[in-house]
Amino acid sequence: VQSDNNGMNGNGVHHVSVRAHVSVNPAKLKSHRQRWNVRPSEMSKKTLNPIRAIVDGMKLTPNPEKPMIALSIGDPTVFGNLPTDDTVLQAMKEAIDSHKYNGYAPSVGYQKSREAVSNFYSCPEAPLEGKDVILTSGCSQAIELAISVLCNPGDNILVPRPGFSLYKTLAVSMGIQVKHYNLLPEKSWEIDLQHLESLIDDKTACLIVNNPSNPCGSVFTKDHQHKILAVASRNCIPILADEIYGDMVFPGCDFQPLAPLSSDVPILSCGGLAKCWLVPGWRMGWILIHDHNDIFGTGIREGLVKLSQRILGPCTVVQGALESILNDTPPEFYQGTISFLKSNSEICFSELSTVPGLNPVMPTGAMYIMVGIEMEHFPDFQNDVEFTERLVTEQSVFCLPATAFEYPDFFRIVVTVPEEMMIEACIRIREFCARHYRPRSQDSHDLDQ
Amino acid sequence: VQSDNNGMNGNGVHHVSVRAHVSVNPAKLKSHRQRWNVRPSEMSKKTLNPIRAIVDGMKLTPNPEKPMIALSIGDPTVFGNLPTDDTVLQAMKEAIDSHKYNGYAPSVGYQKSREAVSNFYSCPEAPLEGKDVILTSGCSQAIELAISVLCNPGDNILVPRPGFSLYKTLAVSMGIQVKHYNLLPEKSWEIDLQHLESLIDDKTACLIVNNPSNPCGSVFTKDHQHKILAVASRNCIPILADEIYGDMVFPGCDFQPLAPLSSDVPILSCGGLAKCWLVPGWRMGWILIHDHNDIFGTGIREGLVKLSQRILGPCTVVQGALESILNDTPPEFYQGTISFLKSNSEICFSELSTVPGLNPVMPTGAMYIMVGIEMEHFPDFQNDVEFTERLVTEQSVFCLPATAFEYPDFFRIVVTVPEEMMIEACIRIREFCARHYRPRSQDSHDLDQ
Repeated sequence: VQSDNNGMNGNGVHHVSVRAHVSVNPAKLKSHRQRWNVRPSEMSKKTLNPIRAIVDGMKLTPNPEKPMIALSIGDPTVFGNLPTDDTVLQAMKEAIDSHKYNGYAPSVGYQKSREAVSNFYSCPEAPLEGKDVILTSGCSQAIELAISVLCNPGDNILVPRPGFSLYKTLAVSMGIQVKHYNLLPEKSWEIDLQHLESLIDDKTACLIVNNPSNPCGSVFTKDHQHKILAVASRNCIPILADEIYGDMVFPGCDFQPLAPLSSDVPILSCGGLAKCWLVPGWRMGWILIHDHNDIFGTGIREGLVKLSQRILGPCTVVQGALESILNDTPPEFYQGTISFLKSNSEICFSELSTVPGLNPVMPTGAMYIMVGIEMEHFPDFQNDVEFTERLVTEQSVFCLPATAFEYPDFFRIVVTVPEEMMIEACIRIREFCARHYRPRSQDSHDLDQ
Repeated sequence: VQSDNNGMNGNGVHHVSVRAHVSVNPAKLKSHRQRWNVRPSEMSKKTLNPIRAIVDGMKLTPNPEKPMIALSIGDPTVFGNLPTDDTVLQAMKEAIDSHKYNGYAPSVGYQKSREAVSNFYSCPEAPLEGKDVILTSGCSQAIELAISVLCNPGDNILVPRPGFSLYKTLAVSMGIQVKHYNLLPEKSWEIDLQHLESLIDDKTACLIVNNPSNPCGSVFTKDHQHKILAVASRNCIPILADEIYGDMVFPGCDFQPLAPLSSDVPILSCGGLAKCWLVPGWRMGWILIHDHNDIFGTGIREGLVKLSQRILGPCTVVQGALESILNDTPPEFYQGTISFLKSNSEICFSELSTVPGLNPVMPTGAMYIMVGIEMEHFPDFQNDVEFTERLVTEQSVFCLPATAFEYPDFFRIVVTVPEEMMIEACIRIREFCARHYRPRSQDSHDLDQ
């Protein structure tokens, strides 16, 4: 093996230059490669996780005198205070004991499991049958399949800002352009519909609507969703509805799935067990195909089936347990989760809304609060990344800077932590802000330098 | 919504023509789409499963007087005669009861589970650590990730003929060209090394070696594998070793993993629980990164990590059970499976090798037998597809025509069925062949018409 000092792969010759050479002199085409030159593919290089990129770039050294409180991880299971229901675990053990769920399922899932999902979500305005359900390896794969079937390289998709980073990660890796439409914090994170519509062009293949929202914790009204559908309808854009937090809304607020409101717009609704059933690691997701007017036709359905054959769907044990998980989990379980999330959100909101320089936005669902930072009052920090980085250094509290959601000068708090941790975290955040807050001076030029 | 009679999607305007128009007249670019025109992506259209395409095109109407015997499905669990071990099921139930495996794992898998795999497969000649293991959603995703990280659109990969169809399905969908190298039935399905090497050019990004082989049931000798490595080494081509049937070899034959034989060639070895542990539905696969000479370097490793973040790895419950599954399953379990497969293979081989017109090739591993058809003696049928189709119609026995593996005039038998079914199937195949066999006439022109 030859090697030189040009990089880890022991080879100074780039693929590109080899190929350029080949196209000039085809006679040499068959000559074999003379040196090792194994490089990661363009697609792998284009698969960028902004959360990882930002977090890996931060110096996260907690204050050794204070135990770490991580409010950063969108996983409700990490603190042990939100266990899944016993019914759910029991269903899994019964699936194992049945010995019926060890072999391959169809790549789109067992028919019985698909029907369990369609029965659970079907309603008169948007009826579903088993054939309308594709089971996937988590909601992530549901989103991947939905984008993959609707979009070609060169197309663009519309995604919310602030928004869940996976949409962009997947799209960019596939050569699909991402256009961000604005959510309006002053309007409970509703979509800026005018801005949304201004982004649409002939290459717009899909509108992604995330409701309830990660990272905002917002829940759209029925009226607002009608307006979103109107935009999609008059521009003939199908919708990918990321409804993984569906039903995870606080008492007094109703979750309205998008599909029953649609008269014509075809919708791929993505969901899964991860959040409402508190088992994100189990990787059980689904796509609900809503297409009353046969606009997707057989093409999109067959495309989804074909794409599902690449990796053959989710774990069969979870599929086997699915019917019982959906039908037998008692209502008290869901209610317990939701009232905990609401209570923690209220604690966090009321604590932080009296902190000078911070502007939390009260959520109505999901498990997050977005908190605005009046950066002009925190001259010690350039931006939300520095702010949250120093919050770790000084107070051992870690929140994700909302730059990770394409929304600088905010940070996101996960409200699934135990109540006493939530309270302690708020106290520390208050202390941190008090220390760094500077009232706006009369001569604001001082601060701008 | 407008519609017309041109296709399911209610629109006569093609994407392509709209875009051609746009490029001529950019002033109209921002005008919104006037009609619904949702088409499945090119990638979904290019994702072709040849087995599905062939089987769906066959008229599979069994003889109502004979119960169906399906020798077509590469799933050892379907007949219930090859259950997984109780240790395996127990490990799953303990993982569930521990309440520790409900949350997200790292996208490449829990460190502890990765170490369980590396410990299981590590050997002095090819040492492995946890960092060298990527856990995936089944071996299918392992193969997908490996191809995705090594290849760009326009590259080519070398795959065996006959061979498992997924390689081609995945590659073609990604715009990667597939070149088939021949396996030689007369040499126990060894690779035609000269043919293999003749296919290599500057755009060859990866050589896929499948050992033990699906559909051949063959197991390469150490000597042959050294020769394969020599070809890869002098052409500087990395290897994707599909070793999902590793250790599933008959007594008297040793499975030799490829990596310990390699002095320089970097290898991504793909495997999983599916076959040896008889739980293909659980979707637990892995990639073992073998790179003694640091030819992959950090680039390929980081690329695999990035790609794994798209859908976040396999079910955490199975990950939690993995250490116990690998370490506690008793040797008798594996031996029981193997001796059953060998016995059934011998029954099938000895029955069919005396059938005029058939040439079975005795396997030494995996769970398949390939059977050659002397088509010139079966003038009733054009090819292996017609032969196997009619075998269903007349005898209610279904074997996959090897056209599904790019290898016409053979068919594949799955040997996991209960012994009495295997025997009955062989009797029926013999009867079928006896009915249709025509000895070669002196004037062979008669048959050619």
